[in-house]
Amino acid sequence: MVPTAAPAGVGAAARESDPAGRSVAELCVAAREASRALAVAPTTVKNAALEAIAALLAQRTDEILAANQLDVAAGAEAGLTDALLDRLRLDQRRVTAIAGALSALVALGDPVGEIIEGWRLPNGLDIRKQRVPLGVVAVIYEARPNVTIDAAALCLKSGNAVVLRGSSTAAHSNAVLAALAAEAAQSQGLPAACVTHVSGGGRDELAELATQRDTVDLIIPRGGEELKAALQAVARVPVIYAAAGNCHVYVDAGADLDRAESIVLNAKVQRPGVCNAAEKLLVHADVAAGFLPRIFSSLRAAGVQLRADERALALAGPGAGEVRLASAEDWDTEYLDLTIAVAVVDSVADAIAHIGRHGSGHSEAIVTADVDAARAFQLGVDAACVYVNASTRFTDGGEFGMGAEIGNSTQKLHARGPIGLRELCTYKYLVEGDGHVRS
Amino acid sequence: MVPTAAPAGVGAAARESDPAGRSVAELCVAAREASRALAVAPTTVKNAALEAIAALLAQRTDEILAANQLDVAAGAEAGLTDALLDRLRLDQRRVTAIAGALSALVALGDPVGEIIEGWRLPNGLDIRKQRVPLGVVAVIYEARPNVTIDAAALCLKSGNAVVLRGSSTAAHSNAVLAALAAEAAQSQGLPAACVTHVSGGGRDELAELATQRDTVDLIIPRGGEELKAALQAVARVPVIYAAAGNCHVYVDAGADLDRAESIVLNAKVQRPGVCNAAEKLLVHADVAAGFLPRIFSSLRAAGVQLRADERALALAGPGAGEVRLASAEDWDTEYLDLTIAVAVVDSVADAIAHIGRHGSGHSEAIVTADVDAARAFQLGVDAACVYVNASTRFTDGGEFGMGAEIGNSTQKLHARGPIGLRELCTYKYLVEGDGHVRS
Repeated sequence: MVPTAAPAGVGAAARESDPAGRSVAELCVAAREASRALAVAPTTVKNAALEAIAALLAQRTDEILAANQLDVAAGAEAGLTDALLDRLRLDQRRVTAIAGALSALVALGDPVGEIIEGWRLPNGLDIRKQRVPLGVVAVIYEARPNVTIDAAALCLKSGNAVVLRGSSTAAHSNAVLAALAAEAAQSQGLPAACVTHVSGGGRDELAELATQRDTVDLIIPRGGEELKAALQAVARVPVIYAAAGNCHVYVDAGADLDRAESIVLNAKVQRPGVCNAAEKLLVHADVAAGFLPRIFSSLRAAGVQLRADERALALAGPGAGEVRLASAEDWDTEYLDLTIAVAVVDSVADAIAHIGRHGSGHSEAIVTADVDAARAFQLGVDAACVYVNASTRFTDGGEFGMGAEIGNSTQKLHARGPIGLRELCTYKYLVEGDGHVRS
Repeated sequence: MVPTAAPAGVGAAARESDPAGRSVAELCVAAREASRALAVAPTTVKNAALEAIAALLAQRTDEILAANQLDVAAGAEAGLTDALLDRLRLDQRRVTAIAGALSALVALGDPVGEIIEGWRLPNGLDIRKQRVPLGVVAVIYEARPNVTIDAAALCLKSGNAVVLRGSSTAAHSNAVLAALAAEAAQSQGLPAACVTHVSGGGRDELAELATQRDTVDLIIPRGGEELKAALQAVARVPVIYAAAGNCHVYVDAGADLDRAESIVLNAKVQRPGVCNAAEKLLVHADVAAGFLPRIFSSLRAAGVQLRADERALALAGPGAGEVRLASAEDWDTEYLDLTIAVAVVDSVADAIAHIGRHGSGHSEAIVTADVDAARAFQLGVDAACVYVNASTRFTDGGEFGMGAEIGNSTQKLHARGPIGLRELCTYKYLVEGDGHVRS
């Protein structure tokens, strides 16, 4: 999609990768240089930069909204869906919300410099394992301009320079927002290249960014399966993929059925379009006859489309005619809408095995009154978050008390679950002696 | 290299990827299945498996040495260097040492199940972040048969199934050792596929192993730059590369020169062929005239080849004739032998900048009496291990008190520095409520 022509002073920077015509590789080198200063910047300076971003967002709301209107108009012309246009659109309220999130980030502790652990060796050497920034983090995202500020702020606070690559659909909005964040950083004595924006370009530019092993430490994609596949094909820089959430709620034999109903409904319908919403319901055979007619009825009343295996279908009760037999693909599908598939299992071990075969390692819940079942489920389920008697919807950096998050990881290396400030860091060992040599 | 024909009963399994003719992908699926049982195995069972390996090593030493002699004979015929043949060769003493390392591993604590941190949310949800195994770890290594047992034991202890891919040069030795480890695991009720051996095959098989994203969680290569490059080209599974160590010792203006001499000599000559040996010496201009003639003389006496920048060369003193002017490439070279390059710098900031340009992020040391210089160096140097007044040679899982190590990481994601038992783990969040739903 080619952005429409912008009025002078608004979208000019968005039409090229860089106003100075630098390549992605050159921009990444500049970000690496900037990261060295940022890595040792005091917390007070980083917080002042976040506050300066908030102040500029308030001062320049008109300019931001004007740039955003160009993107929205071009998107409408290009036939974007209403849902996509809504994600793309900024207004006064949304800009205020973005600025508000910055204040919350200022209030959080600085992960940089934390001593994770430390000990003295028998030979007297003192070792401290200290949290330090990764260096340069690239965030690749789709047409949500708020991510520009969210990602820049999380990276600044954690001492990382950020390379932002948004969608061309939001090119005008992102250019204004990224330039504003860079200006705010600079106003506090940090290098402007702490916030580097790479806009426009296509797959070639993505591949160029994804192969800058010498300058970029981590890529975080925030997008769907298409972006993931594109990155997997070309990335040489480490990537943390925020994979799909095919989350299960398992209602055990001993479950309180009121509690089970409340948790299943919350996990499915409170916000169905997100990765921590439940997509599957497993019910123990001992309570299936009592629970299924009731939960099918409640889910239907909440507008949920129902699919079931043969055993669950046979127990669906009066409304069985509206329940479809689930296909084999259903068990591996993340619907991200008001649909759920239901199966009957014979034991907690069967539930664990089902989740082992079909789960995506995101968030899994058991509802039970039986402490042995709870323990077996926590031990046996291999996922980022394993819940006992609580909704899967709590998997979120904010809900977990980690402050903001930049995504949610279902991979096992480095960060699993919410990716917050600490997860944007690495560590180094500081070792102190008084002339120690190895014998 | 084609292994020579083996007598019946010794090398049969080494001639094919698998006695049952299974593909690498199929072997990885079996390892994944085995990993589920191993992940929840009690520490007592895992330790008993390690002890069973030690017992079998003692019982079957003759069989092991017979298989090893086939590899050594074939290697000699193929013209391997003496150094490579020495790495390949096993004898009674070395087998005993491998078994001894297992006892040390038994004595270490189990990383699985450790609570890394935990907290209660304002809404009453209790969160624990618990260490759990990664699942399946593939270790790719060169012709050192001892790695077969070391890697299998570290993975077993940390609850991970291991897929071992050794060099075809050690195919007979590895087949016997891996089969023995699998048998020991099985004798304690663990699945034999906890230790899976992939031998023979070439680049195609490496690529097959490196793309098993659904079954393999991590690849750890233990080899040189050639293996690294081969993996980088094909790997889709996450890899932790144990990169080169271009380590520096910086002698600051205020350094005690006796201490500096002792640390430089230790870091360079105590074991020059390893990644934590010093390859570069930086000396502050204020002490260069006093220190350089002395350290050049000591290093030369220890058999070290000397290279220097122009400033250091000018101060080399009486033996300057034996010091070569360093080339631009020298500063980026890991010699791994008795060679060192020396430069004069004007400040701790210059030393940090030099290390930032040329260091490989492994181990860097400052020798100083000045607390501000020490603090600046620790803050400014971006490396896995930063030493004050101690030799770089301490970077090692054993020296650090972490027990054994499977390698040393110079990358920033997941594990930096020694990769021990904990670094072979991930974590999961266990969340407990009493009917909590999100509002």
